[in-house]
Parts: sequence; C-alpha cells; structure tokens
Amino acid sequence: MAEKKIKADKALKDFGDEIVTQVNKGKNPELVFTLRGLSNIIFDQKARSLRLGDKTASRAFFNVAHTKKFLQTVEVASISKNLIKEEKHASLRDAFYQIKRTLPGTKINIVDEQTESDKAIEDLEVITGVSREQLHFNANKNGSIAGKVVILDKGDTIDWSKLGSGGWSIPSNVEDITFKKVNAKYILYMEKAAVWERLHEDKYWDKQNCIIVSSQGQTTRGIRRLLQRLSEEFNLPIYVLCDWDIYGAYIYSVIKYGSIALAHLGSKMTIPSVKYIGITGDDVIKYDLKKHLIKLDEKDTSRIKQVANYEWFKGNKDWQRQFKMFKELGGKVEIQALSARGISFISDKYLPDKIKNKEYLE
Amino acid sequence: MAEKKIKADKALKDFGDEIVTQVNKGKNPELVFTLRGLSNIIFDQKARSLRLGDKTASRAFFNVAHTKKFLQTVEVASISKNLIKEEKHASLRDAFYQIKRTLPGTKINIVDEQTESDKAIEDLEVITGVSREQLHFNANKNGSIAGKVVILDKGDTIDWSKLGSGGWSIPSNVEDITFKKVNAKYILYMEKAAVWERLHEDKYWDKQNCIIVSSQGQTTRGIRRLLQRLSEEFNLPIYVLCDWDIYGAYIYSVIKYGSIALAHLGSKMTIPSVKYIGITGDDVIKYDLKKHLIKLDEKDTSRIKQVANYEWFKGNKDWQRQFKMFKELGGKVEIQALSARGISFISDKYLPDKIKNKEYLE
Repeated sequence: MAEKKIKADKALKDFGDEIVTQVNKGKNPELVFTLRGLSNIIFDQKARSLRLGDKTASRAFFNVAHTKKFLQTVEVASISKNLIKEEKHASLRDAFYQIKRTLPGTKINIVDEQTESDKAIEDLEVITGVSREQLHFNANKNGSIAGKVVILDKGDTIDWSKLGSGGWSIPSNVEDITFKKVNAKYILYMEKAAVWERLHEDKYWDKQNCIIVSSQGQTTRGIRRLLQRLSEEFNLPIYVLCDWDIYGAYIYSVIKYGSIALAHLGSKMTIPSVKYIGITGDDVIKYDLKKHLIKLDEKDTSRIKQVANYEWFKGNKDWQRQFKMFKELGGKVEIQALSARGISFISDKYLPDKIKNKEYLE
Repeated sequence: MAEKKIKADKALKDFGDEIVTQVNKGKNPELVFTLRGLSNIIFDQKARSLRLGDKTASRAFFNVAHTKKFLQTVEVASISKNLIKEEKHASLRDAFYQIKRTLPGTKINIVDEQTESDKAIEDLEVITGVSREQLHFNANKNGSIAGKVVILDKGDTIDWSKLGSGGWSIPSNVEDITFKKVNAKYILYMEKAAVWERLHEDKYWDKQNCIIVSSQGQTTRGIRRLLQRLSEEFNLPIYVLCDWDIYGAYIYSVIKYGSIALAHLGSKMTIPSVKYIGITGDDVIKYDLKKHLIKLDEKDTSRIKQVANYEWFKGNKDWQRQFKMFKELGGKVEIQALSARGISFISDKYLPDKIKNKEYLE
C-alpha cells in the first residue's frame, strides 16, 4: 500500500519536475506520450494481451492546437496530487466537475465534457505509468463476492463467508485490500447477479471450496483487478460463466486479453490464464437445451462475424467452432436456461461436472 | 420468518383448494382476481399510494381465450410451492425457464416469453395477497449499504459498520433479515453508487449517525423493502438524494407513492413518509451551480410535463415550483456537480446543512 502511494506520488512529482525543468530552460513545455488511437493498438502474441505500440505523440504548451489538452493533463495531475494527499478518491464524474473550472478573466472552462477529463486521466496514466486507481480516480462500483476468504480493508477484517444472503459489495477500487486468508481452489466469475444469488443460496462456494464473483453486465475495473490480484497472489484458476451469446464471449475475452479502450494499460488489467467454463454450444446439445435457443438477430450475426475476426480469437479453433455453432444451432442460450433442468441443476450437476472433467475453452 | 412462510403456504393451499372444490362440484374452474390494467389503477389520496380499484376479472379453465393463462397461473403456484418446500428462491428468469415446459403430446409450451410468466406471477400475487418475494420469486439484486446496524441473515451476524470500502451487498430479497441493533437517526438513500462511495469514504454514516444506501439507477424491490422495513420497524426518517432532473423526481415518487407497474401491491411497497433532500433548483442558486446546468432536451421537457401532471404531484406546490424551475434555469444538475465546490463538500457542508435546517421537499 505505502509502496503504491510512494510510486504514484513520485510519478506525479517527476511529471511536474519535467515541466518545470523545461520552463526553467526557456523551452516550450511539452508532454510526450504513447499514442492511444486504434492505429497504435497491438495484440501482443507473447504476452497474450492488447497493448499500445511504439508510436508517440507530444503536446506543446505554446501550440494553439495543444494548449488546452496540455492544461487539462496538468490540471488532472494537480487534482490527483491533492486527492492522494487528502487520502480521498474521486469518481470520474467527480473529477470532471473538479476540473471544470473557468479560467480567471475568461469564459473558458478547462473542460466542458466528461470525455475531455476522462481522456486527460488516460493521458496521465500513459505518461506516468500509474493506473487510474493509484492516481485516486475510481471507476464504477458493482458486483458481489462470497467465499472462504478473509480480507483487511480500511481497518476492517471482513470474512466473505459470513455475509448472509447479500455477500460483500465490491468497491470500485481494490488496490488497498490485504488478503489475510484465502481458502479456495478456484474462482468462478459470472456475468449475472441472479446466477450469483442462485449459487450463493446453494452454498456452492462452500461445497466446492471456491470464490464466487458477479457483476451485472460489464465487468468493472474493480472486479477485474480483484480477479487479477486473487489469481496472481494466490495462483488461483479463474473460470468465467456467461450466456452462450457473442456478448458472453466478448466479456470473457476482455478479462483474458484486455480491451481496446484499456490497451494503454497493457497486461496490467488482463488475466491470460482465465478459462471459459460455459455456457457452450456443446452444452446446448448435451443438456438438451435446444428448445431454449433464442433466435439470433442481425446485430448478433454481424457481431459474431466481427468478434470471430479479432486477432485473439482468429487462431483459436475451439472458439471458431463455437462461433460456427451459433449459426448451426441458429440461436443463443442463457445461463438460466439450465433452470429448466431443475432450479439447482447448475450447482449440483452442471458446474461440478464441468470442473471435474476440465471442460473449458481457453 | 416462520409466520411469513406459513402465510405463503396457506395462501397457496387455499388457492389450490378453491380450484379442487370447484372441480369436485362439477363446475368450470375459475380464478377471480383484481384487474391490474391502467383503467383500474387509483391514487389513494388517504393512503397516499397507488393501488388497484375494485374492478375484477375472472379466468375460466373451459374458455379457449382463458385456458392458457389459467394454466400458467396454476403452474406458477406449483413452482412457488416447490421453491418454498425446498427453501430455495428463483429469479424471474429462472421461473420463466422452469415454467416453459412443453405440454406432453403437444408442441405447446406453457409460456414462450418471460412477460407471460412475469404476469402469471403478478396474478398469483394479486389472488393470494402474498408478495412475489414471499412466494420465493426474487427480483434484481443491486446496491450497497453501510451504517451502525447489525443484522442476522442466513445464520450470519453482519455488522454494516465493519465492511471496509465495499459495504454490504443488498440481496434481492430482504424478507428474512432480522435487525439485531440499529443505531441511526435517519437513512439516506441515493441513486448513485459513486456518491455512496464518496459518503462512505468520508465516513458520513459514522459522523452523522445514519445509514447510507445506494442502488445504481432504478431502485430495486429489495432496496425498497429494506428501506420500508427500517422505516417501519425503527421509525427512521428516510431522505432521498437524486440528481436534480425529472428522473430523480420520479425515482423519489416511486419510493414514496409506488408505481403503476406495482400498483397491485398497494401500500406494501410504498413509504409515504420519505422526504426529498436534494438536489433542488434552489440548491443550484444557493450553491452557485448554474455553470453546471446541463441543457434540457426534448425528452426531458416532455417528461417534466408528464410527471408534473401525475396525480401525486399535481397538488404539491413545492414540487410544481421545482418543475417550473427546470424551465426557468433551462437545465438540470447532477449530484456530483457539488464536487466542484470541493470533493467532500457534499459530506462536510451540503448534507449536514440540509438536515440541520430541515430543507426537504415532501
């Protein structure tokens, strides 16, 4: 923790020092950083994650086209410095309003839209090499977790196995959590809160000795970092449970390989070892779910084509087979379709069998 | 708890007995229930909540137009009975898949779309007078809570003041929670998780001796029931904190008066004593937030007109004044705009002042 704080502090100081040095030398102050556009995004075959290439750009203060963005980045750094000093965190929206001040004697706001402050925060991440969370800017809060794990957070000792039907509410920022005890063989992440409630009511985590985590829809940065920390610090396998539709496949791939929007973080937010446990096209056949197929619409079909062509899916035979099965079966299937086989079929049969037989997609 | 279970069990038994009695008498079995359509929704001025009127409808088994819906309702009752017996809960989606079986010897599914099973569940709520949760059908899970409260849930003793930065994750169903200790002067409910994180980091609930609750967007049934139970069982005032836009006003009114979709539950899900703490048009002026006004679009303007004409807002001078101020100020304002005054302005100044000066809208 302390170490991380020193790292962020130092990175911000270096950032400021560099500008001051340039000013003292009578130079036009300039910020140099790696380009974040699509043209500079690479799928790193070795690291198995999306990252930025080598192209750089610079922003000079005395350049009418650059000066506002230059100022925005410096302002974000200044706000980050204050937040760290005050030991407080701001949401991206909070940060926007803090940055949106009017330059004295003018009618010009430093930012007018949140996209501007968001981009300035990303700039600062790229320039300093420190993550948004470490700069004290938080993303969204979402999701629940349960399992035989004890953590220390903000002075509280929290036992994830003793939180009733609700579980622990995952914060947007998990950088400062300390894991005191982790008793689990694997982690199961699912995209649906309702499925989490099913498994939780069935005490799946207790019976199977695992950790269950869910969001609702998008996997937040907080959840991804939590998964990554548990995976790295305790060498735990992670299995992802999604609807068998193209969005499920994409949710999985973002956890595994990263996303275009976060390519500037490289492997900092990716978990290459993560595996996909289901639902699959094969499950549809094996568990007699054909009747629960939901017809693909045009959006599904075109998204399947697109995702199948992503570099990280291209050479993957197992996934290409799944993409084909969407067409062959003419539909997609939800996790909850398993409930047709019995309300606890998923906990008693489906998941234990999959884990036992190591039926995963990589 | 036990009492509630007996009530649901008995209601289902009565429901079945009634049908059997009709069959034994050689009658055409018929279900009679209160109509749920718009034509039968009344704003009860005395109870200050939306409820159904006296119009009833019936569904007969031997009527080609009714028979499927009759069967759906009976099927839902049967699934509910099993869930209660097995001490399990199903999400609405789970319930849909459980009900969606094919009638033997035909190609007819009992339901084809979730709207059908949802409606059948509502039918059963109206007929039995028992809520969906008590019938073991859960709605969505969402939201976090913190405060000096100790609860008992599923055998776990949970202290809401000792859950680190995340808080307790609110389950979809809070019927079976027991409150062991409640040390709070009021409850603050906010529509945004990011604002909750701000107040939580500032230990607002500790300093102000209150409970803080948030969802993200829509207030789930679980949250509304939790608010209602805390309000009724401990006589705690509830204040609602929303963006100053028409959607915020509506979120507030649903908690206070109920909604058209849930009118069949009458006052079971409403909290007439709830008060609106902000943001208001007056705050925009008082706290110098004009610069942060976001222009109204056509959708906003037409929705303002619509909401202002709702019966429960019609005679309310204070709210009518707010609705006018949207037009006068030409915009709406987010809660987070307060961050422009300092990241903890909301915790240190805005909310304490409002509470102290009793500046609420009813």
